[in-house]
Amino acid sequence: MTEFTAKASVLIEALPYIQRFAGKTMVIKYGGSAMGGPFEQVILDIIWLKQAGIRPVVVHGGGKEITGLLNRLQIESQFVDGLRVTDAETMNVAEMVLGGSINKRIAATFYKNGVAAVGLTGVDGGLLKVRQKREELGLVGEVVSVNSSFLTQLLDAGVVPIIAPIGVDENGVRYNVNADSAAGAIAGALHAEKLVLLTDVPGILRNTPNGKQVLNQITPEGIQLLIEEGQITGGMVPKVEACLQALAAGAKHVHILNGEEPHALLLEVFTDQGIGTMVIGEETA
Amino acid sequence: MTEFTAKASVLIEALPYIQRFAGKTMVIKYGGSAMGGPFEQVILDIIWLKQAGIRPVVVHGGGKEITGLLNRLQIESQFVDGLRVTDAETMNVAEMVLGGSINKRIAATFYKNGVAAVGLTGVDGGLLKVRQKREELGLVGEVVSVNSSFLTQLLDAGVVPIIAPIGVDENGVRYNVNADSAAGAIAGALHAEKLVLLTDVPGILRNTPNGKQVLNQITPEGIQLLIEEGQITGGMVPKVEACLQALAAGAKHVHILNGEEPHALLLEVFTDQGIGTMVIGEETA
Amino acid sequence: MTEFTAKASVLIEALPYIQRFAGKTMVIKYGGSAMGGPFEQVILDIIWLKQAGIRPVVVHGGGKEITGLLNRLQIESQFVDGLRVTDAETMNVAEMVLGGSINKRIAATFYKNGVAAVGLTGVDGGLLKVRQKREELGLVGEVVSVNSSFLTQLLDAGVVPIIAPIGVDENGVRYNVNADSAAGAIAGALHAEKLVLLTDVPGILRNTPNGKQVLNQITPEGIQLLIEEGQITGGMVPKVEACLQALAAGAKHVHILNGEEPHALLLEVFTDQGIGTMVIGEETA
Amino acid sequence: MTEFTAKASVLIEALPYIQRFAGKTMVIKYGGSAMGGPFEQVILDIIWLKQAGIRPVVVHGGGKEITGLLNRLQIESQFVDGLRVTDAETMNVAEMVLGGSINKRIAATFYKNGVAAVGLTGVDGGLLKVRQKREELGLVGEVVSVNSSFLTQLLDAGVVPIIAPIGVDENGVRYNVNADSAAGAIAGALHAEKLVLLTDVPGILRNTPNGKQVLNQITPEGIQLLIEEGQITGGMVPKVEACLQALAAGAKHVHILNGEEPHALLLEVFTDQGIGTMVIGEETA
Amino acid sequence: MTEFTAKASVLIEALPYIQRFAGKTMVIKYGGSAMGGPFEQVILDIIWLKQAGIRPVVVHGGGKEITGLLNRLQIESQFVDGLRVTDAETMNVAEMVLGGSINKRIAATFYKNGVAAVGLTGVDGGLLKVRQKREELGLVGEVVSVNSSFLTQLLDAGVVPIIAPIGVDENGVRYNVNADSAAGAIAGALHAEKLVLLTDVPGILRNTPNGKQVLNQITPEGIQLLIEEGQITGGMVPKVEACLQALAAGAKHVHILNGEEPHALLLEVFTDQGIGTMVIGEETA
Amino acid sequence: MTEFTAKASVLIEALPYIQRFAGKTMVIKYGGSAMGGPFEQVILDIIWLKQAGIRPVVVHGGGKEITGLLNRLQIESQFVDGLRVTDAETMNVAEMVLGGSINKRIAATFYKNGVAAVGLTGVDGGLLKVRQKREELGLVGEVVSVNSSFLTQLLDAGVVPIIAPIGVDENGVRYNVNADSAAGAIAGALHAEKLVLLTDVPGILRNTPNGKQVLNQITPEGIQLLIEEGQITGGMVPKVEACLQALAAGAKHVHILNGEEPHALLLEVFTDQGIGTMVIGEETA
Repeated sequence: MTEFTAKASVLIEALPYIQRFAGKTMVIKYGGSAMGGPFEQVILDIIWLKQAGIRPVVVHGGGKEITGLLNRLQIESQFVDGLRVTDAETMNVAEMVLGGSINKRIAATFYKNGVAAVGLTGVDGGLLKVRQKREELGLVGEVVSVNSSFLTQLLDAGVVPIIAPIGVDENGVRYNVNADSAAGAIAGALHAEKLVLLTDVPGILRNTPNGKQVLNQITPEGIQLLIEEGQITGGMVPKVEACLQALAAGAKHVHILNGEEPHALLLEVFTDQGIGTMVIGEETA
Repeated sequence: MTEFTAKASVLIEALPYIQRFAGKTMVIKYGGSAMGGPFEQVILDIIWLKQAGIRPVVVHGGGKEITGLLNRLQIESQFVDGLRVTDAETMNVAEMVLGGSINKRIAATFYKNGVAAVGLTGVDGGLLKVRQKREELGLVGEVVSVNSSFLTQLLDAGVVPIIAPIGVDENGVRYNVNADSAAGAIAGALHAEKLVLLTDVPGILRNTPNGKQVLNQITPEGIQLLIEEGQITGGMVPKVEACLQALAAGAKHVHILNGEEPHALLLEVFTDQGIGTMVIGEETA
Repeated sequence: MTEFTAKASVLIEALPYIQRFAGKTMVIKYGGSAMGGPFEQVILDIIWLKQAGIRPVVVHGGGKEITGLLNRLQIESQFVDGLRVTDAETMNVAEMVLGGSINKRIAATFYKNGVAAVGLTGVDGGLLKVRQKREELGLVGEVVSVNSSFLTQLLDAGVVPIIAPIGVDENGVRYNVNADSAAGAIAGALHAEKLVLLTDVPGILRNTPNGKQVLNQITPEGIQLLIEEGQITGGMVPKVEACLQALAAGAKHVHILNGEEPHALLLEVFTDQGIGTMVIGEETA
Repeated sequence: MTEFTAKASVLIEALPYIQRFAGKTMVIKYGGSAMGGPFEQVILDIIWLKQAGIRPVVVHGGGKEITGLLNRLQIESQFVDGLRVTDAETMNVAEMVLGGSINKRIAATFYKNGVAAVGLTGVDGGLLKVRQKREELGLVGEVVSVNSSFLTQLLDAGVVPIIAPIGVDENGVRYNVNADSAAGAIAGALHAEKLVLLTDVPGILRNTPNGKQVLNQITPEGIQLLIEEGQITGGMVPKVEACLQALAAGAKHVHILNGEEPHALLLEVFTDQGIGTMVIGEETA
Repeated sequence: MTEFTAKASVLIEALPYIQRFAGKTMVIKYGGSAMGGPFEQVILDIIWLKQAGIRPVVVHGGGKEITGLLNRLQIESQFVDGLRVTDAETMNVAEMVLGGSINKRIAATFYKNGVAAVGLTGVDGGLLKVRQKREELGLVGEVVSVNSSFLTQLLDAGVVPIIAPIGVDENGVRYNVNADSAAGAIAGALHAEKLVLLTDVPGILRNTPNGKQVLNQITPEGIQLLIEEGQITGGMVPKVEACLQALAAGAKHVHILNGEEPHALLLEVFTDQGIGTMVIGEETA
Repeated sequence: MTEFTAKASVLIEALPYIQRFAGKTMVIKYGGSAMGGPFEQVILDIIWLKQAGIRPVVVHGGGKEITGLLNRLQIESQFVDGLRVTDAETMNVAEMVLGGSINKRIAATFYKNGVAAVGLTGVDGGLLKVRQKREELGLVGEVVSVNSSFLTQLLDAGVVPIIAPIGVDENGVRYNVNADSAAGAIAGALHAEKLVLLTDVPGILRNTPNGKQVLNQITPEGIQLLIEEGQITGGMVPKVEACLQALAAGAKHVHILNGEEPHALLLEVFTDQGIGTMVIGEETA
């Protein structure tokens, strides 16, 4: 097979995926943990999606950088049940890091590559309306509703929305929201074709006699079972909960990929090989 | 005059101004120095403008808060010719304070009062394209062009844009921009009916035998003269330069008001009494 | 409280009303009896409504002027049960006075004040389709249907419709219609936020030990009771019937105000003090 | 030739005219003098035009009926140079007859025949802006400008505008306008394909040895010549002046037809035989 | 009656029909058997329909010309139950004759007469999706679905679609479709006002004591009866089946006319005399 | 380099080309000579272009198949100066083969692959207006004008136009047009980004000491030189003339590729390696 033939076959392999997904919405959660990886490659992958007619929405995290700034500012945190309490000062730091620093770094990388992107937090356009999650955790919110018509307007105008996971209540008070949950709520509200969680693990793992193995596909029921068996633990629990939420609210499929692997997103969407774990919505299962 | 008659006469006094300005664009620079004043009252004034059919654009500053955070982080600044150099770390702080903290506080106050607002920096949608101003000052930029079609789309959609004065170059590098200059460039690009600078002084002052007096009106030539006479100095110089720039680029009038005075903006726009100083564009003069 | 503060507080008091009513439709019946009052002030009030984003529709009367012209032309009227019979000649006089004289006087006053208004009778665009009310009354009609899509087109185009209460049947025959009824039918068909009847009395009155008193609010049931008690009589009967009709057909609220009081309309809509009587639709009551 | 063939040949004869004029605007002046003729037939002809894709605008007169009402009201007229002075009372009568009576009679005839028509005077939408013609004639106006975008909106919406020849100045004062002049100004402003003056004479006549003869075609220069020769006199002078004005302002052709002849308009527009006199615009001549 | 009056009366007779049918869709099946008649006259009739505001769709046949080319190419046909089998070679000939020759001849005649027409087969835009009718007949298809939104787009753009009766299945294979059936399916899918079958007989005939007589009107039930009585036979059977199908699927009326009679279509649609046979839909019957 | 990395690098290599060409128009001439090659692969390449946001227009030839049918029908051709004369019978054959057979085969292949395509000849919508080229050649035409607004409407609607090279004159007479010329005229009229001629040779060749070599790039001047040197001869002459015409009329670049090489089109457009010969428009040269 010559180099030419090889190139052509990769492009032709992508064609049915391009046709299938054109005009569909995909929500990409770009986690703080994945940001240590090939940052600009991930942005290029998302630009590829957009150029192929997909409507991408980016939700990002930034936990590590928030912790870094809190430390530098010597802001000490209260903990309740081992969870960090978000007081006003902590919230201000989160808003600065997420809405000011990371959000704009991503928007600027799109701009540099010739693509119109708009960085937002859930305050802008009342994008993420939230309520307090548990009183003792302070300014931690859970999403009540998503202003999906505002997002749709941006997508119709050809803009990529970059969303920091901060919400607002009817009094204008801002709350920190878990980024996976925010992405799940947005994917559900937009009835997204896919929610892709870019993280730092290769997918959902299962213990087998031969050691831990990545599951290619799993149903919501399968996830429930793994949680009960104690095979899904730690940081993976909120992730799979976001998956289930998104599927229940109207998203079609959810993927958990290792964002540190080069072009994992591109390969997942446009080639025959699946990567990571796909959680299948009920209608398809 | 009964209370009823008095109320009616205030409303009727406002009518010709409402008719004159409906559909026109006004850029309001809400300076950091004015933010110590009646914050929410200023937002209500801008909402009044919007409800009366005006298309407001808000540009804000935040110098004091940036300095506060730099101090807390013990980031020391270099100075060149007495001007602070903006290195990468300082720029990151500016981006967090302007784009993350102040910008979203303003957007949230609009949201709380039932108005759709979207907080942006010049990175979003490539709103403010800039170049480095002077190499030795580091990441300090001057505006090269404004993406006015993006702003127009937002205004057509009934949204109030809240803009933090940060620009971007073609490599995606972000620069700090003087807020008055940014507002002036935006007002010029939008051919705004008015650029209103809300500051902490009552207007442009002139020495008279009876002490300093606020000038009600002045022409660009008059400003030139006052600068030459040394009557305009210090922080007022960049302000009047932004005025002149905005007028030259297409704005109709510029106003300098004391934003700490309650509802100064509302009274200036909708009542017979002028407040502060109006700089008259040449065509009108 | 300085003059400035006083002015600002009136404007700020109006803001929530402006926000609440923006985009809503209001039908103003400007009765012949009220026309003796401050004519141009009423037009200015309606222009205020329009500039604040409300969609006003004006329906006017003109009974006195019709009688005046009939007398000058020595046209004698037949009476049935004390009601004047509208024969062809009388109808022609009504059409000339309402559609030619009063209608255009109002339209011209809007034009003079810079607002696009279009004077119409129910013939134009088939606006008011009617049928004969009682054979022995001749050309007196009652509204069968309103061409609300034609009115909506005008309102969408930013035009104020001025409507004379004349209707048409499918043979092109024109009929005189009671102006209150016409306004009620139009308000109902447009699902208007408010129907305001500007008349020459301060509202619906009730006998109390301290003499007649204006009722601030009343429900349809309350009106029924007052009619049964004989407290609503004479010219007020058709007015309250129009109110009930309008509410039943889809209008939200109806107001009866004294149009001879300066700026009664403006104060009712945009200040905290209610004026006159508000008839509350069932859903609100 | 059977009846069928005969019918088909009339329809097919009309086809090229229908194709040529589809989408074009025609202004029909329906003069008071022609109104004694087959009233409803004229309306049917105009409806035919509309159904064939032409955009008709109707301007009507009504001199005789105004005189009739003035007489009945015993309003005596002043005369200057033999011309009747229009004082406020006379103007009110004109407005009632033209805007209230005739205008709505025409609109109702369209409505009865299933066509949306809207009766207007030049006040509505500021359609005809005028100034006083000669001070000593009182409220007699000449057209300064036509709000052609308002007419275009109506035509785009599929409505037939019926216009009474009354204008308004910037103070809201109404003036009587000669109907031929009004029609000419409107035809010019709309760059109408045709201005058709329906009158009570068969066209422009010329003395020949065999007596008076109708001219089939004439150029503006030819008209000038006939005026100089004294062959065009009396009421025909303002008519031909309106023709010349309309052509100069942008109308393509002007026709003078006898509106008392059954279906003269229809035959002129859609058959091979020309009727009456066509005044040819310069570009065609 | 003068010539003028006669012409006017034909045009005026057409007016109510023009008004009734404006904006309605009519599907005209122009059969191969009728093509021997006055070809260009038929096209002119359809252009007349279009100019009068009707939305015509043309479906044509071409059996004779296909047979002619098959003979010239010495392609012999298999027959099953007396029906010709359409193999690949025959299908190619049908596609060339229908889609290449006849279709473009019709489109060119429209073009020559100043009307935008677009010739299509059912392949274009996936206009006619079909399945095989009977395996032993080869490439003979029956319509499964019509892409009516594509046709509607063309009609909205003012284009006359000219459709050759060829369909396509999901594998891109083309099939020959009976032209009457294709027209019926299209008329049904478009909820056409009329389906007109132009053929070479004067309508549906019935035996009477006085010989065969054309039926002016008939209901679907009446047709069923005639079939059972053996009065409808031969080539008329598929025609009346297409009629019944079209009515069942949503068309309002179906007409069977003799397309060889000059301007039969025009006279049927726009004059008081009906021509041929009208099959009345149930709702009207 | 793993398989994954290799795939990703091909896709990422394509990204800048996808970004550069999105929204641009490309005209692909798919020559009869190239049709012997990988037919469906070429269609897939064009679908790839479309999915990547390019607006493709296909112009096809079919000389060999026309000759084949002429032979089968034993239609003998006259020759003038060695050129075949197109008489009416030959033209009918050309119309059947091009407009009926090949055109629909291409459209059906798009349909099968899920893409809306519409097959047309230059008759449809008056797409290609032509005049006779040389009287003695009969019905051979050259393009006078292209109805580019019709093509633009189709492209805006997301449809791929497939155009057979047949034109029409104002009398509705159809003419055969050289397919390369037709493609050049269309590319020029649409100001296409690229005109790609898919043929059966690898590009423009030049004699070198080492034998014939494909030129990668050439300017119009270079082509002129090669023609003068006699290095461009035979069937390549009309091709390069079409190139020059297209560039002169507004196309940006022209490419001559070997359409028999698998996916030549795809590789040319979306990879770093150029294939075949690119003729550079003057502005770029």
